[in-house]
Amino acid sequence: MDKVGVWLIGARGSVATTATVGAAAIRAGVAPPQGCVTESPGFPGRLVPLAGLVFGGHDITETSLRKRAEQLSRAGVIPSGLAELLAPDLDAADAEIRPGHVPGDGAQAAAAARLIGDISGFRDRHRLGRVVVVNVSSTEPPAGRRPEFDRLSDLEERLAAGDDVLPPSSLYAYAAFHAGCGYVEFTPSTGPALPALAELAAQRGLPYAGRDGKTGETLVKSALAPMFAGRALRVRSWSGLNLLGGGDGATLADPAARSSKELSKDQVVAGVLGEPVEGRTHIDYVADLGEWKTAWDHVTFEGFLGVRMALQFTWQGCDSALAAPLVLDLARLVARAHEKKRAGALPELGYFFKNPLGTDEHALPAQYARLRTFAEELS
Amino acid sequence: MDKVGVWLIGARGSVATTATVGAAAIRAGVAPPQGCVTESPGFPGRLVPLAGLVFGGHDITETSLRKRAEQLSRAGVIPSGLAELLAPDLDAADAEIRPGHVPGDGAQAAAAARLIGDISGFRDRHRLGRVVVVNVSSTEPPAGRRPEFDRLSDLEERLAAGDDVLPPSSLYAYAAFHAGCGYVEFTPSTGPALPALAELAAQRGLPYAGRDGKTGETLVKSALAPMFAGRALRVRSWSGLNLLGGGDGATLADPAARSSKELSKDQVVAGVLGEPVEGRTHIDYVADLGEWKTAWDHVTFEGFLGVRMALQFTWQGCDSALAAPLVLDLARLVARAHEKKRAGALPELGYFFKNPLGTDEHALPAQYARLRTFAEELS
Amino acid sequence: MDKVGVWLIGARGSVATTATVGAAAIRAGVAPPQGCVTESPGFPGRLVPLAGLVFGGHDITETSLRKRAEQLSRAGVIPSGLAELLAPDLDAADAEIRPGHVPGDGAQAAAAARLIGDISGFRDRHRLGRVVVVNVSSTEPPAGRRPEFDRLSDLEERLAAGDDVLPPSSLYAYAAFHAGCGYVEFTPSTGPALPALAELAAQRGLPYAGRDGKTGETLVKSALAPMFAGRALRVRSWSGLNLLGGGDGATLADPAARSSKELSKDQVVAGVLGEPVEGRTHIDYVADLGEWKTAWDHVTFEGFLGVRMALQFTWQGCDSALAAPLVLDLARLVARAHEKKRAGALPELGYFFKNPLGTDEHALPAQYARLRTFAEELS
Amino acid sequence: MDKVGVWLIGARGSVATTATVGAAAIRAGVAPPQGCVTESPGFPGRLVPLAGLVFGGHDITETSLRKRAEQLSRAGVIPSGLAELLAPDLDAADAEIRPGHVPGDGAQAAAAARLIGDISGFRDRHRLGRVVVVNVSSTEPPAGRRPEFDRLSDLEERLAAGDDVLPPSSLYAYAAFHAGCGYVEFTPSTGPALPALAELAAQRGLPYAGRDGKTGETLVKSALAPMFAGRALRVRSWSGLNLLGGGDGATLADPAARSSKELSKDQVVAGVLGEPVEGRTHIDYVADLGEWKTAWDHVTFEGFLGVRMALQFTWQGCDSALAAPLVLDLARLVARAHEKKRAGALPELGYFFKNPLGTDEHALPAQYARLRTFAEELS
Repeated sequence: MDKVGVWLIGARGSVATTATVGAAAIRAGVAPPQGCVTESPGFPGRLVPLAGLVFGGHDITETSLRKRAEQLSRAGVIPSGLAELLAPDLDAADAEIRPGHVPGDGAQAAAAARLIGDISGFRDRHRLGRVVVVNVSSTEPPAGRRPEFDRLSDLEERLAAGDDVLPPSSLYAYAAFHAGCGYVEFTPSTGPALPALAELAAQRGLPYAGRDGKTGETLVKSALAPMFAGRALRVRSWSGLNLLGGGDGATLADPAARSSKELSKDQVVAGVLGEPVEGRTHIDYVADLGEWKTAWDHVTFEGFLGVRMALQFTWQGCDSALAAPLVLDLARLVARAHEKKRAGALPELGYFFKNPLGTDEHALPAQYARLRTFAEELS
Repeated sequence: MDKVGVWLIGARGSVATTATVGAAAIRAGVAPPQGCVTESPGFPGRLVPLAGLVFGGHDITETSLRKRAEQLSRAGVIPSGLAELLAPDLDAADAEIRPGHVPGDGAQAAAAARLIGDISGFRDRHRLGRVVVVNVSSTEPPAGRRPEFDRLSDLEERLAAGDDVLPPSSLYAYAAFHAGCGYVEFTPSTGPALPALAELAAQRGLPYAGRDGKTGETLVKSALAPMFAGRALRVRSWSGLNLLGGGDGATLADPAARSSKELSKDQVVAGVLGEPVEGRTHIDYVADLGEWKTAWDHVTFEGFLGVRMALQFTWQGCDSALAAPLVLDLARLVARAHEKKRAGALPELGYFFKNPLGTDEHALPAQYARLRTFAEELS
Repeated sequence: MDKVGVWLIGARGSVATTATVGAAAIRAGVAPPQGCVTESPGFPGRLVPLAGLVFGGHDITETSLRKRAEQLSRAGVIPSGLAELLAPDLDAADAEIRPGHVPGDGAQAAAAARLIGDISGFRDRHRLGRVVVVNVSSTEPPAGRRPEFDRLSDLEERLAAGDDVLPPSSLYAYAAFHAGCGYVEFTPSTGPALPALAELAAQRGLPYAGRDGKTGETLVKSALAPMFAGRALRVRSWSGLNLLGGGDGATLADPAARSSKELSKDQVVAGVLGEPVEGRTHIDYVADLGEWKTAWDHVTFEGFLGVRMALQFTWQGCDSALAAPLVLDLARLVARAHEKKRAGALPELGYFFKNPLGTDEHALPAQYARLRTFAEELS
Repeated sequence: MDKVGVWLIGARGSVATTATVGAAAIRAGVAPPQGCVTESPGFPGRLVPLAGLVFGGHDITETSLRKRAEQLSRAGVIPSGLAELLAPDLDAADAEIRPGHVPGDGAQAAAAARLIGDISGFRDRHRLGRVVVVNVSSTEPPAGRRPEFDRLSDLEERLAAGDDVLPPSSLYAYAAFHAGCGYVEFTPSTGPALPALAELAAQRGLPYAGRDGKTGETLVKSALAPMFAGRALRVRSWSGLNLLGGGDGATLADPAARSSKELSKDQVVAGVLGEPVEGRTHIDYVADLGEWKTAWDHVTFEGFLGVRMALQFTWQGCDSALAAPLVLDLARLVARAHEKKRAGALPELGYFFKNPLGTDEHALPAQYARLRTFAEELS
């Protein structure tokens, strides 16, 4: 089976670094593939082996992967000693990281050409069957709608005219598609979710998936909401507070970026239950939590004869450790879908996302069943 | 469609009273069928309408259903005013409650004959197509194994000889089968789970289901454990404390009865995850909680690169309000299975139980899918 | 000992109704004085007996106290049957409720004259030794500063000129002082906390206390923060989410009013620990919670050698039931302080408030010790 | 000021190792004295400086302190690098650890003589003004009462006759007193709490304190219970589950040892509230938690007019990190009390214990106030 490239936008971030270290550790046989859905016992289908993944990407910072790995080691995300042990792999990945596009620093049309060249060069150098571009960079503020987002020709006309109309994540999706790559939007940002980019993916026969990796509190929500629905227990309110440290949290200290994330989170419960539910989800940045995250959810519900009951849960997770294996899963699945000539949004990958493209299904059990069927079909 | 009888063992208990009041309230149009799985929108299949259920049963106490309903009203389980409003229905059900068998008070063979007569009389008086016997009485201590439990002929020989070998719940199951009725074991007690009784049910072509209604903490466990499994997150420990008030709790103040319940609870997680998991579930009786129950669960799990994370939840529920609608669901489903000539244990009803008979499936999503298919097939 | 009048601003609200019903119930011997600090065994000092309190007040709504009591009964705040039993007491209090001042409805100077007359009339009719005015109405948005707030003469000049400069709560405090009454600001509103009003209270020799009754989450905070301080454990973050139903919550759906409350809550921890602490407190209105409130707090702290640890708590309380007995305590204590010729802010009553006037002490144990000493001194 | 010896029973255990490392780190200026009560800003009195403490002790294992420190480093209790940095200090303490007495291995009278010699030798070698013996070894099962425990002469007669009647912790206390040292019982074991040993301490003019360091869940209990009492809120039930990993937990897997601990925990709430309260505290060993501990407590309480409310908390702490600085506090305070000729049990140190000797006071605020007064008096 051909090797597959994983091109990470935000390649020096916590998630990307953890994914790169983890893939190398599993390849070296020093860590089990825990947290990788596609490696769990009995998971169907035939995908590129984890050892067949090659890493590269874009980033706007220059700290080396080794240094980032050591930081994550001190933060308890990566076992100590692993960064040293896997230094050659990290250096190899480091050598394939190119400068990301800094908004405002040159026109988007020129930037896109450069990004496309970076990705194509990576594919050629490593003779990769396919490359999947995965955005794991910081969350953007929600993007406004613009008329040129609706048609590819209008969009390209505007870019050619020197108008920088695309949000950064969408510029990367645009470059990925032009480079002939599948794309995964792992953040809540817009990415490929514009009609003009869907048109481009269709033209090029490229698959994509997103948005916003479902790693923690929302994962639990999507497991519990169907339980209430199945038992005919009426959910009356669902409220939550997320306390985030680290890079993710710092970005979300910006209210605009936070609103992208909160919107993404709030639709899951209503999506599963089929009706709006009182309550909202707050996100707070608490620097002291480091790479960790604590979320509390409080649910009130009504049973037989209107009796009121309540469920609370507290989730204490490490987002990078939860996201990184999913990045590997998604890269492998999208590469295989590409190989099998699937184009457009992949609703079958909704299991991985808070705000799945191409489907309204938010219930975790239904998403999981669909994922397994998809994996079987891809074989 | 024929009317269906619901014969409740423990007919004056909290669950039975709530079920009787609730069915009457729904029939009278003063309460929605919330909490009834088989009444939820889109649930497939064709069952006897709730208005077609007729109630009777056995109990060893004599407090009237009206009085019990008023007690439950003060405890917040039944809306105030409902007991008065539905007094004629409660009195009608009361008139169909016969004295339960008090262990030690006469030989089991004679007791069985009397119980069979009670159930048959009820069916005849109301010209019921079918009667389902549902045990919602107090939990028994675990019963030891005996050689005569393995063959019906040996069992009947011992009973004929005046040996009272059956645990009370199994005596009721024995009587139910001899009376030609399906049986539901809603408690953790032995009930029909003896080879000799399976033989009897097979001979008579009767379906049965059990054991131990999955109403609260264990329900949540069975929704969350598959989430961990699907995401390849390794559960390292799962501990819990259940604080129970009310009748259920008082019974469980007896360590022997408690051990039946704790065993029933502890197998769900290991059952879903396919490996034993450290930790145990405690049950405490806290009189002050009245009809309410609070459970706390603490789960540690391991993700990518061995990172440790944790999930806690607190469930605050009212067991009677959670159990009562499931009793109605089960009576309707077993009656329909009986009509469709299904005999023996019904693994398709595992969705309702902590310790499902005839299956090892404990994952809630899989159980729910199987229930829906079953309901469709019964149409 | 003379009778004491309790004049409630917001006399038909949940807190006022519960206080009025509760005082009558205790007087009638049908409820113990649970929740009343000044009635707890061994509490020092000599205060007017609860049976010596007479109730009246202002409100802008007209629903009768009986009706309000029945509503609170259905909500589970007042035991059922109590409203009927105590109907004569409620009717008597009802007869002493006068229309509150609706902002914008006439000049404040004229309004103040009318309010003063209402309070004085109440005192005269019942021959009360003293009247204490207690504000338990809805929370106001934070009031801006104005130059005329600094001197009584400037303030009275502006009022005389027809300028309505006072926030409503301060208008009531102004009227209370002019009527010769002590005043308690039980809400986060400004009330007497203006230099001009402090001047007036000093002139008239009147005591006052406030602000913002410490009834739930903040009470727990002020008990736990000193524990960390005493043990030299460094608190690193303290975050919280309050979910409020009922009247209080609905008012706080208004972001401006909410900000008054959040400010009041956030200062306690820093006040006790003597340094700012990361994290904030959110307040959400969740109508489904009715008269109940659920708060979750999450604290991270650092121990020996920098080890990080965490504490979480969930508080589930009924604010009216928690606030009402404190209103009785405060009325009795302020009446006694008035009798003993204490004038100005009473820092000794900081135990009752989130934002105590006249003191920076926020630690519950220190506040409690000071309260007991004060109660002894008043004897 | 003279140097003070800290002689640790269980000198290679987690608490002792953390205390030894921590004292060295603080002395070296590489860690702040966080968690040390006697070092907190404004704490009164004059004690031996932390740099004046010299460490030695007994243990029955032989793993070096350096190795134990590295283990605790991997477990996250001690910052990485500290064990290497402080190796000379650890080696020095290691050189002062002598073999503990293994029960059954020789008569207690002879063992006591040897233990006394060990302690005296340590004092002489280092020319220490005073030595305080602190028991931080594993918890013993509760010891039965024996007639010879009531009088020193009877006890010594039995020992002389070769009867090994003392529980191990009491043998160490006996040796400590004979060696002229103060003693701290930091575990729930019997230690000095026998009339015969009180007699010995009185004869020799030696102070002692105990039992069972109040480090986590019970600390929180003793902060919260007085809050309920002060507010006249009636606690109706208090239940808890403790999940313990590590050495402490493993010992407590033995039901007999666990019962010592559970008894110690359950008396605090009743002690503060002055009446028995429904509910109990469970302790479970969960190996997966390592050096960490998670406890959940659930409290129901009743307020005004009987309204029911609830409080839950979850404590996630590291027992060694919480206990170690208190060991330093206690050694300093007991050494100073010894110097000031205080003899017998020191009730003023109840702040540090779940089951304080010489006092029934369990409320944390009262204990803290008494500790501060004591510290002032010792100056």
